[in-house]
Amino acid sequence: MTYCVGLKMNRGLVFMSDTRTNAGVDNISTFRKMFTWTDGGDTVVTLMTAGNLATTQAVVSTIDERMKAPGDRTPSILGLPSMYQIARHVGQLLVDIIAERAGGGMRADSAFNATIILGGQVKGSEPRLFLIYPEGNFIEASDDTPFLQIGETKYGRPILVRAFDPSMSFEAAVKLLLVSFDSTIKANLSVGLPLDLHIYERDSLRRGMERRIRAEDPYFQTISKGWGDALKGAFDSLPDITF
Amino acid sequence: MTYCVGLKMNRGLVFMSDTRTNAGVDNISTFRKMFTWTDGGDTVVTLMTAGNLATTQAVVSTIDERMKAPGDRTPSILGLPSMYQIARHVGQLLVDIIAERAGGGMRADSAFNATIILGGQVKGSEPRLFLIYPEGNFIEASDDTPFLQIGETKYGRPILVRAFDPSMSFEAAVKLLLVSFDSTIKANLSVGLPLDLHIYERDSLRRGMERRIRAEDPYFQTISKGWGDALKGAFDSLPDITF
Repeated sequence: MTYCVGLKMNRGLVFMSDTRTNAGVDNISTFRKMFTWTDGGDTVVTLMTAGNLATTQAVVSTIDERMKAPGDRTPSILGLPSMYQIARHVGQLLVDIIAERAGGGMRADSAFNATIILGGQVKGSEPRLFLIYPEGNFIEASDDTPFLQIGETKYGRPILVRAFDPSMSFEAAVKLLLVSFDSTIKANLSVGLPLDLHIYERDSLRRGMERRIRAEDPYFQTISKGWGDALKGAFDSLPDITF
Repeated sequence: MTYCVGLKMNRGLVFMSDTRTNAGVDNISTFRKMFTWTDGGDTVVTLMTAGNLATTQAVVSTIDERMKAPGDRTPSILGLPSMYQIARHVGQLLVDIIAERAGGGMRADSAFNATIILGGQVKGSEPRLFLIYPEGNFIEASDDTPFLQIGETKYGRPILVRAFDPSMSFEAAVKLLLVSFDSTIKANLSVGLPLDLHIYERDSLRRGMERRIRAEDPYFQTISKGWGDALKGAFDSLPDITF
């Protein structure tokens, strides 16, 4: 499994992903699941992946290759005129890659499936954030639902539902994501550190702050330890029932 | 789906279950999922169910019938000498009922499956708490893992992991369960109010306090509203990251 969250905020977009991949419980590895492309001024795209690792790596490699081969007839995602077109393009790419493998004799229903969070901005339009399904269709984050999750989404969802506010600062958003990730990591072996973070500042049209947060990161440790105590304090502050 | 939690505490056992059942999203009903039997002094047993409603109702009805028909060759669970024997008996009953239906031409893998939390006390031994699988085998709550969940377990798990302590008061335990249930209800349509509660006091060997908690219950409303604010306070109390 995997856990990735994308936040659509007033000030921009924030992405966080874990790095654990597993096939069963005894084949555990660390792989990057967050990828950012930019052409220096017109388009910034960040993509996070959950699901079959061969599928998601094929999607990322294909996007990479098409950028490096200018003579290729298929377009680079950075040449497309809108985030919507980029989402369509990546969705179709995902469908093609899954179909290619699924047509090879393998019959398992979802063995090659993957899900993608895609966000970014194209010059002249708003930052946008999408969740792309294995079928290639997608949904977009909106004011009503300003965050998207993929992978092992349930453990970390209640705190996002309660505390996320698109007008909060980037600093508070990172704190919120770390709480959500820490709750998930504590409950589920298939999600693990280190975490990747990308903060895209609205209208900057360049790669924002990127950071890899490891287990020994002092701020992560402060949050992980402090949250337990803070939760207990919050819990104690509520009145007990009287029978 | 469903959400049920059993807590093994120093002072006894606490059980809470929701009452929503659904087949798809447009066939929603309210059914009791918690059942208690006692013979007035020797044995108290509480059972909570998740899964196929026909299966779980058949289990409960069979247990009921065997109690009311003293000439029946199969034993009543209340006549058995230990909680372990009761768990074995209920596990076998569950397997038989699933097999009976599954043998009738239906092929879907898990269509008739159900999972059960069973807890109680037999005179002369400790209170015990079990989780029974559809295969009839079971695990027991221990000092290391003093709570058991069935159904839609993920949303409400982080708060239990962080805040549950077997030495806490019954009042605090009910508060904790309500927070866990409220987080689940807010995130998942298949879990819903009212909630059933049973507090079994260690060595009392009689039915403990039972209560049905409805949406308009003032204490539930206090917790549901207060928890959002308390969480935000806890969240604000943690330091922001500095970039």
